Order: sequence, then structure tokens, then C-alpha cells
Amino acid sequence: MVVVMQKGVSQEQIKKVQAHLEAEGFSVHLSQGVNRTIMGVIGEPGQIDPQMLASLPGVEKVVPIMQPFKLASRDFKHHNTVIPVGDQLIGDGHVCIIAGPCAIEGRENFLQAAQAVKEAGADMLRGGAFKPRTSPYSFQGLGEQGLKIMAEARDLTGLPIVTEVMDQKSISMVAEYVDIIQVGARNMQNYFLLRELGKVDKPILLKRGMAATIEEWLMAAEYILGSGNPQVILCERGIRTFETYTRNTLDLSAVPLLKQLTHLPVLVDPSHGTGKRELVEPMSLAAVACGADGIMVEVHPDPAKAWSDGPQSLVPEDFARLARKVRHLERLSKLEY
Amino acid sequence: MVVVMQKGVSQEQIKKVQAHLEAEGFSVHLSQGVNRTIMGVIGEPGQIDPQMLASLPGVEKVVPIMQPFKLASRDFKHHNTVIPVGDQLIGDGHVCIIAGPCAIEGRENFLQAAQAVKEAGADMLRGGAFKPRTSPYSFQGLGEQGLKIMAEARDLTGLPIVTEVMDQKSISMVAEYVDIIQVGARNMQNYFLLRELGKVDKPILLKRGMAATIEEWLMAAEYILGSGNPQVILCERGIRTFETYTRNTLDLSAVPLLKQLTHLPVLVDPSHGTGKRELVEPMSLAAVACGADGIMVEVHPDPAKAWSDGPQSLVPEDFARLARKVRHLERLSKLEY
Amino acid sequence: MVVVMQKGVSQEQIKKVQAHLEAEGFSVHLSQGVNRTIMGVIGEPGQIDPQMLASLPGVEKVVPIMQPFKLASRDFKHHNTVIPVGDQLIGDGHVCIIAGPCAIEGRENFLQAAQAVKEAGADMLRGGAFKPRTSPYSFQGLGEQGLKIMAEARDLTGLPIVTEVMDQKSISMVAEYVDIIQVGARNMQNYFLLRELGKVDKPILLKRGMAATIEEWLMAAEYILGSGNPQVILCERGIRTFETYTRNTLDLSAVPLLKQLTHLPVLVDPSHGTGKRELVEPMSLAAVACGADGIMVEVHPDPAKAWSDGPQSLVPEDFARLARKVRHLERLSKLEY
Amino acid sequence: MVVVMQKGVSQEQIKKVQAHLEAEGFSVHLSQGVNRTIMGVIGEPGQIDPQMLASLPGVEKVVPIMQPFKLASRDFKHHNTVIPVGDQLIGDGHVCIIAGPCAIEGRENFLQAAQAVKEAGADMLRGGAFKPRTSPYSFQGLGEQGLKIMAEARDLTGLPIVTEVMDQKSISMVAEYVDIIQVGARNMQNYFLLRELGKVDKPILLKRGMAATIEEWLMAAEYILGSGNPQVILCERGIRTFETYTRNTLDLSAVPLLKQLTHLPVLVDPSHGTGKRELVEPMSLAAVACGADGIMVEVHPDPAKAWSDGPQSLVPEDFARLARKVRHLERLSKLEY
Repeated sequence: MVVVMQKGVSQEQIKKVQAHLEAEGFSVHLSQGVNRTIMGVIGEPGQIDPQMLASLPGVEKVVPIMQPFKLASRDFKHHNTVIPVGDQLIGDGHVCIIAGPCAIEGRENFLQAAQAVKEAGADMLRGGAFKPRTSPYSFQGLGEQGLKIMAEARDLTGLPIVTEVMDQKSISMVAEYVDIIQVGARNMQNYFLLRELGKVDKPILLKRGMAATIEEWLMAAEYILGSGNPQVILCERGIRTFETYTRNTLDLSAVPLLKQLTHLPVLVDPSHGTGKRELVEPMSLAAVACGADGIMVEVHPDPAKAWSDGPQSLVPEDFARLARKVRHLERLSKLEY
Repeated sequence: MVVVMQKGVSQEQIKKVQAHLEAEGFSVHLSQGVNRTIMGVIGEPGQIDPQMLASLPGVEKVVPIMQPFKLASRDFKHHNTVIPVGDQLIGDGHVCIIAGPCAIEGRENFLQAAQAVKEAGADMLRGGAFKPRTSPYSFQGLGEQGLKIMAEARDLTGLPIVTEVMDQKSISMVAEYVDIIQVGARNMQNYFLLRELGKVDKPILLKRGMAATIEEWLMAAEYILGSGNPQVILCERGIRTFETYTRNTLDLSAVPLLKQLTHLPVLVDPSHGTGKRELVEPMSLAAVACGADGIMVEVHPDPAKAWSDGPQSLVPEDFARLARKVRHLERLSKLEY
Repeated sequence: MVVVMQKGVSQEQIKKVQAHLEAEGFSVHLSQGVNRTIMGVIGEPGQIDPQMLASLPGVEKVVPIMQPFKLASRDFKHHNTVIPVGDQLIGDGHVCIIAGPCAIEGRENFLQAAQAVKEAGADMLRGGAFKPRTSPYSFQGLGEQGLKIMAEARDLTGLPIVTEVMDQKSISMVAEYVDIIQVGARNMQNYFLLRELGKVDKPILLKRGMAATIEEWLMAAEYILGSGNPQVILCERGIRTFETYTRNTLDLSAVPLLKQLTHLPVLVDPSHGTGKRELVEPMSLAAVACGADGIMVEVHPDPAKAWSDGPQSLVPEDFARLARKVRHLERLSKLEY
Repeated sequence: MVVVMQKGVSQEQIKKVQAHLEAEGFSVHLSQGVNRTIMGVIGEPGQIDPQMLASLPGVEKVVPIMQPFKLASRDFKHHNTVIPVGDQLIGDGHVCIIAGPCAIEGRENFLQAAQAVKEAGADMLRGGAFKPRTSPYSFQGLGEQGLKIMAEARDLTGLPIVTEVMDQKSISMVAEYVDIIQVGARNMQNYFLLRELGKVDKPILLKRGMAATIEEWLMAAEYILGSGNPQVILCERGIRTFETYTRNTLDLSAVPLLKQLTHLPVLVDPSHGTGKRELVEPMSLAAVACGADGIMVEVHPDPAKAWSDGPQSLVPEDFARLARKVRHLERLSKLEY
């Protein structure tokens, strides 16, 4: 941590801040320049709140040097975290393809979709039983009935299932049925939810918040990790910007960046990330090319009848082509250059 | 709603979309131009999901005409909603000043702060018993103990109290102690929480999400209103932009805009909105000048010792000056021009 | 400047970076922590490029401590810059009201508008002879003919005139006719233009770029100041965010922030800043309440016939009311509290 | 175009707006709903300014249906534009690799860099003779001397050369020396510059502005195309968002989107787009995977000594690996699936 003192600060104020830091167990190195005095503060980060420090009289600003996340960082754990799901692995170097409809709308429909994505090459099955909808007047999901349909689809296809949980109360119910529990973008900073998910023995797929920095996202992961659950999977799904042609701006540079900062697996959701069906395939390929551990794609047997997110859903034939291209790219990118 | 068909769409596809809409009870007016066919779709919005419509073969885009919020809109209710809190009113044309420390750190401290803000001119008292913190290693609040201290401060000062709730489970506990329940920016789209708050008989202060459009914010209010609680107060607290000198960008234009769109009262939080102590006073005055129903300001007897948000907290003397200026501006802006 | 070295860097690399800095005339203070070594670098900023430094082997990041702007900073010049325009002053503590149509569309029209804004209380007259239009198919302005009409309007009304220049070649022509030369948001980082304007003996009104940080804006001012022209007026006109109800997000917190950082006068343009006629009056009042030195407002005798920016133009009667309210607020805010 | 009338508008106002439109040569289809009247307006877009229309009394909003760009659109020209540069082509389906230092710092240095990037697999050579720098105190480029060095490098290596032009006055000089003229992000809406470049017989590489929507970017291309130069190459280089780990947010979804909207070739600059050396390779591969016609990469023999943009420059060995991987990906993505 570096503390920058205000211009014209008195020696007394400098000493007070220094004394305050030393009393907290830090060691302090002073550098007095012509215009500013700065302090190098050495010690364990987390012992002191930089915001509090920034309020001390005479302090102009506090510059953190160390990253605030610990358990999520590569410094803490060098090797990639590999997460077993059913008899598969996420984060072991191969590309995991998760596919399925946005919402579960009915039994027949979903089982048909499950079969279709399996045949088309999906590794896992997604579907929403609880839907976070901007409007209270939109379809909110089938709830437990939806979870039962998902479990039936797993039995039918053998594909592990992924679904979103939206509140603490439903966690145990959801955990009973599914293989991976998803936290949606709107709940990325719902800390009570995150802490509860830290006590569950299921992998958590943590989507990036619409306006979350990568640091805040990793701090959200830290809530889960720190509460006892080491199985966190990150999923980039686009951030909010001024561009309106796409629903969100898919930040693919987050993928290689996260690969440096953290040991956790990183997926990409190009369906929500773009909001446009015709961009899903090229952005899936781009995600794989820059190192994503997998993709999560919306597929619906009849998008025109989907109760939500129709414009970004692929029909099974298009998804099958996408899956073939992804596998092709995956194989080839492993060849020696 | 306007449906724009793709270029070169067949007459058959146009008829199918038209038939689909008419089957749903809408009436459709066709306009066939040289380049595009558009359909004016007339009927009750909410009957059909625009996203689903956009997925029909041949449809290029769907342009909503009506605002998606209903209960929150001026169209639905012309007169301003005035919300009684204790023996005071919010939204009746006067400026409500809510002040207090960000977090409750201890009994002595908080009672002292409560007394100080009362003397300095506050109408209501704020304080955090549950704190949404980016880092799991930061102070998370005193919980119920904090609520008890707040209640004691109310008894002592007579000021109504405002605090944040972060999860469904704590709602009934929080509702027992406080006068206004706050929903923080990070939970603005926590729909399970919003729906539960719709069943509570307390005013809800709904902060704008960091990346929430004004429309999404009003839709969040709609969740509470639609679940049965008409007492919603909106609070602008800054949105996330690229600017880094300020913690957020306070969007004051939201105030007069909301005054047109909705009948709900609108407050402004210049402390979180800017993150800088020295900007709190000028932005409070600006908020009042553009029509806010009140302001919510962080005040701490000793900001340098605050456990959170120190750099944006005012000392009581500065707050007293701010309150005097706000009252002055309020009085004068009521004089005839 | 603080240089943070990478984790696990060798002593040799540390010494090389230190030697490099000392060779450039800096003195270096080393702080070696458990996890990182940091260097406090003392010397005149500007001597070395932080980007270059960040590329040296072993360097993790470089944190600038000093602000990069000099001539524009309060540190450099404590007293407010007051700029004479005709027999008026900008930046002397009173509120300057600049008003007029977005574009000059014809002689009759403009003279009529000029007379109207004068009667309604404007101090200066604005109008566009060269228009930066997103579309090449939109009206691009009358050019020199427009400048002549402006000059005639000045003779008629006595109001100083402000217009935008868009390219170097037109500078001398524009400077001949007008009292203040405006640089539009799209040209805020057109450095060749800025440098040329540094050689002109006219005040320059520098609008903030749509995606410009406050620091970049002050650096743009620095280009003009550093080329010899000390008469720079800043004008906040809204930044680009995800919100779509307003055309831009007017960042009023920039006003009190700039008042701390720089000695230059600061105006606000609520017309372009919001893009909505009905927000212009409340945001003008807010701008004055938070300390702006003036406002710049679009007024058109018949907005429905305006060739550009109609929806944000006021009719003269509305502007007259706005001007009365601004004067009222200005007078009252000078009374003792 | 669709015109939405305000709620409660009178029949007379509706007739006036309709008459206005018909007088301008449009045909109008009225749809009168319970809450709103909307008008489908049919005719050639561009004949009327939507902003002007939106100002007519009784009009609530105007929704454009057609894209505002014409010459740049796929509707106007179905086949891809292929641009010859020397004996090479851009936009013909192969991946063009442009590489070189950010700024030209000296003759020896640049010739060495040119030789290195050629050997490593570059197709074309980039370098800056005029540098748009945020700070007036940073190195601004060698000017014509730099152009001469570039021309010498072309003679030496046979690689076509690309450089940025920043003002109208230098266009003819730059055009004399280089093969492709670049317009930087800061000048994307410098319309005088764009119009002049429309008169030049050289390909123009048009970078996306930092806060430019895709539509605004295509409108900027339209300025060049409309002034007579059909050789425009688009280059995505990242947009400005709230994320600070990367210098910009590279919007790769713009690539497949542009491929739909326009016939112009699309390149990607992952160096400026991320600002981080270690992200350049993965994002280059992602760009190729989603369909870019080429990449533009900063390479410097000794980034630690670069006068600008060191942290994002690759050393030649790293660039050579990147180029091999890009070629590998390019070859393979052409195999049948």
C-alpha cells in the first residue's frame, strides 16, 4: 500500500499517520519529495481498510499495491482448479459446451430440447427454473416443477444439469436436483447468497455482473471460496456499455486476463453476451481461441415460441454446426505450431 | 408496439406474423414501404413478450412504444405519492434531509452521531446494520445489535430511522425496528427480495443500481408496488462510468426526468454518488435545485475512524453548514420569480 | 511516481531500474516488503514517460502521484482565471448566460432569435456556422455566411458571439468575426487544432469530449495553454453512458471538482447534456447551485422548424423564465446563510 | 420511420404532422390505438431530419427504421469490398497482419524493427510519424522525417506501410509516402479530415472512436465514401468502459456484426484494444476466429525503450509466435468441418 500525503502537509501530520500505521503492525518507509511525501506501507493487506486510511488528516490518497483477492488468486494457488461434474471435468484444458433453453417452459418441450442438444454435441444441459426478469409481468419460471423436469432430462440424456438460484431459501432445493448452481449477473453482489453457496457441496457457476469490474468479480468469488466452497467457475456474459446494437458488450479479454489472475476455470456465454443469434457462433469460436474453458449457449427447438430470450437462441441445427466448429478448433489448437 | 419486418420478407411471412398477433388479441395496421413493411400493433402491452415476437421468422426488430412500467407511471397515477414517516412526510414538496454514519460501529459512537446530526438539522437518521461490502474481509455490520442501537437513537432524538436490508430472511427483523427499509444498489434487481418487500407495511427506499437504466429502476419499483406496497421512494446514488476522479457519476438529470415519468418521491445520495467529501455540499444543493424531494448524506463524528466510507463522510460541522444552505435554497426557491 | 516491482523480482533487476531512474535525474526510495518491492521516485514529473518505465523488465506497474496537467492546475495558479469578453467577464463569480440557436439557418431567423434571447436575459449569443453532424447527409452549416450573420446580430444586440471551429484552416476566419471560439466535444482531442488555437488571441470555450475523463479534458486545455493562449473556458456537456432516456449523462459533479483542480472558468451546457427540452431548466438551476460560472443554452424561435437539435431547444418564453430563475438563484446564493 | 404521437394529442395535431410529412413527399399510414397514435412514414430516409420531426407539436418520439448509412451498407453493395495494397489484398478472405512500432523513434531503430517484423511474418508495416498524445509534454512524433524513414523501410523490406494522419494540412504529404492512411480513434469524428480523405486515392484505415457506436463509426466511413473514396478499412481498437484492468474493452462482437452490416473489411488492433502485452496474442487469435480480415499489432525490438505504448508492445520473438499461430488458425479454419 502506498499513502500519498497532501501537498504542504505538516511534519506532525506525517508522524501521526506513520504512528497510526505502525500501531497497526505495519512498517512504513517515508519518501519525501519536493511536492509530496509518500509512504510505502508494508504488511499484510486486509489488516487495515484503505478507505479509513484515506480519511486520516493530511492523506491525499491511498494506492493499493496488492490485489485484494487472495483465495482466488494465482499467487495463492498456482495450478488450475479442475472441477469434476458427473464424470466430466471443467478446467482441465478441454472445452466444455453447456447448452439448452433459457427457461424451462414445459416437460415435453424441455426433454425434446435436452435430447436435441445432446445429439448436437453438448456436454452439459442448461435451463432456467427461476428466471430473473426485468419486468414483474414476464414469465418467472416454473420453480421446483422445472427442477424436476431438468432432473428427468438428466436421467434421459446423461448430461449434467446447470440452473440458476436466485435466493437463499431455494438453495437447498436447487442443490438437491442439479449438478452446477448458477449465480446470475444481477446477483453477483448478493453477498448473503454468495456466503450461503460457500456452504454447499456443488460447483457454483458465477456470472459476471453487468457493471462489475474483474476485481469485483473475483471478490465475489472470494465470498464463496472463503465460506468453504472451492468449486467456483467464472462465466463472462458481457458488460453494459453505450453500444446498443448488441445487448451487452462481451468482454473476451477478460478470459486471458483471468487466466493470469486466478486459478479458477473461465466460461463464456455468447448468447447473453451479444443478444443476437447470428453472433453466437463467431463469438463462441473467439472465446475458445482466446482460452476459455467452455461456452454456455442458448438453444431452443423453436426460438419463435420461446418465453424468454428468443432472439439469442439457436435452433438445434445451428448449434450442431457451432459444436462441430468448436471441437474442430479445439483439436487444432492443440496441434504443435 | 411496432414490428419491423426484414427486407425482402414474403407476403406469407407477413401474414403469419399478423395472424399470430391477431390470435393474441391485438389489432394490426400494415404499412408497406419500398424497403420495409412495418406493423403498428395495438392492444394492451404486457400481453405479449416483445422478445418472443422478435424471434418470429421474418421479423427484423420490435420497437416498444409504451413504457413497460404501469403502477409506477404518471399515466397510472397523476398526483405525487406522499409517504408518511413518523410525523413527517416525504414527497410533499419540502426537502427531507437524511443523515448519519455509513455503518453503525458501536453504541456510544452512534448515539453521539445521532445527536449531532439532529442538532445540525437532519430530519431522519441513517445507519447501516448490514453492510454490502465488496470484500469479504471488510467489516460487515453489527446485525441485530446495530438495529437495537438505531432504535435507541430514535428514542433519544425523535428522528425516524433508515437502514438497509440485504436478504429476505432479515426483512421481518429489520421491519420491526426501523421506519424506512432501504434496498441498496447491489440488490436493486434482487427480485425475490423486492417481492417480499412488497408485502411489508413500511416505506421502501430503493436505490438505483450501478448500471441500471431509469427504466430498469422503475421496473424494480414495479416489483414492490405490484406485490402490494405502494410506499416506494427512489434514490439516485450515481451510476458507473469511465470517469475515475469520482467514485460514481451522479446522474442528477434523473431527478427531473423521474418527476415526469413517475409519481414516486425521488431522493439523491451525493455521498455515495461522488465518493468525495468536498463534493457532497455542492451536489446536495444541485439536487435540491433540480427538484429532489430530499438528500441522504453520510455524516460521521470522526471520519478518519470510520470503518467504511470515511472519505465521503462529512464531520457534523460541515453537515450543519450544508443543512443551513439546503434550507436556505429550499425557502428561496419557493419565492415567486 | 511509485514503481511497483513484480513479485519475485531479482535484486539485480531492482538495481537496474533504480539505476535507470537515477540516470534520468530522479532520486529513488526503496521499500522492500514481504510480497513486493516498491520505489518512491522523486523528481519533476514529465521528465520520464510512465509507460516507458512500465515496460522495464521486472516492473509490475507505475502509479503516478502528481497530476499530469500543470498550467491548468490550481497548484500552478491559485486565483481564478477571469476572462474578459467584450465589456463582460467570465469567471468573476457571476453567472454568464449564453443562448441562441444550435445552427444559423438564415439571416432573418437568426437576427430574430438574437433579439429574442437578448430580451429574455442572455449575456452572450451562440450559433453554429460550422456544424459537426454524425451524418454527412445532415445540414452542415452556412460557413462564412453564417459568421457574417452572427456579426450582424452582435451589432444589432450588443451581445458577444460564440461559435464553433472545426478545422485549422477556418481558425483565422472564425477569429475575425467572433468573440469566443468553441471547440466541440468531437474535437476535444484534435491536438493540431488545439495547438493552433493556442496561438490565437481569443478566448477558447473547450467542451468536454463524450468519453473524456476530467484529466484528459484538462490535458486538452493544457495543449492550448501551453501554446500561448491563457484564455480557456471549460464547458461540461454530458458524457456517454448506458442510459438512453437522456442523450448524454450530464456530469455536474465535474463542476465543483474542476473548481478544485483548476483555475479556469467552468460552464455547463444542459441542452446537449440532456437532449431533452424539459430537462434544460432544472439542470441549469442545478449547474448554478453547484458553482458553474455560466450556462450555455439552445433557444430557437420555432424549435419544430430547427434544422438541428430541435428537441432540446427552448422557445424564447421558456428561456426567459429560465433566465429569471437563474438570476434569482444567483442573487440569493450570494446572501449570507 | 415511425412517428409516435403523445398521449391525448388532438386530431388536429395529428393532421398537421401528417400534412407536414406528405408535403415533404412521404406517404403516411395512421394506426390509432387506445393509448397512442402512431404513423408509419414511408419514403426515402434522409429526406427529413428525425430530430426536426421530433420537435413538431404533439410528437412524442420518432423511431428510425432504416439504417442511416447507405454507401457503407450491405444493402447498397452485397459483395465484400476488397482493397488492393501494393501486390496484396485486404478483405479477400485471408488474414492480413500489420505490425511495427507505435512511434518511429529513429532511422536505425525503425529499419531494424521493419526487418524483424517482416522476418516474423508481417504482411505490412505500421509506424507513427505523427502521434496523438494525451499530454502535450509527450513525444509527438518525427513528422516528415518519420515518413521518409518509413518509405526507406518499405524499400528495404517490400512491406506496404501504414501511418496515421492527424490534420488536413498533412494529408497530401502523408499520401505521397504511405500505402494506407490511418485515421485514429480521436479523429474518427473529425469531419473536415474525413471529407478531405474522401478525395485521396489511397486506402483509409478508419479506427473506431473510443465512445463511438457502431452506427456512428459507419457514418464516419460514410463521410469518406460519400466524398469519393471507396477504399475504407475499419479497425476495432477497443471502447471505453468502466473496466480498468485493461486500457480499453476490445469489442470483438463488432467484427461479425460489421460483416453483416457492411461490405467493408474489418481489422482488429489488440494492442491498443487491451493495452497489455500478454493479452495481444490470445485476442489476436480470437479476432481471427470471429472473422476479422486482419490484425494490427505493435511490435518493438526493445519495448522498455519505446517512447510510447511500451507496455502493449511485443518483442519480435513473441510476435513471430503470434504470427505462426494466426497462420495456423487461418489455414485450419478454412478446412471443411
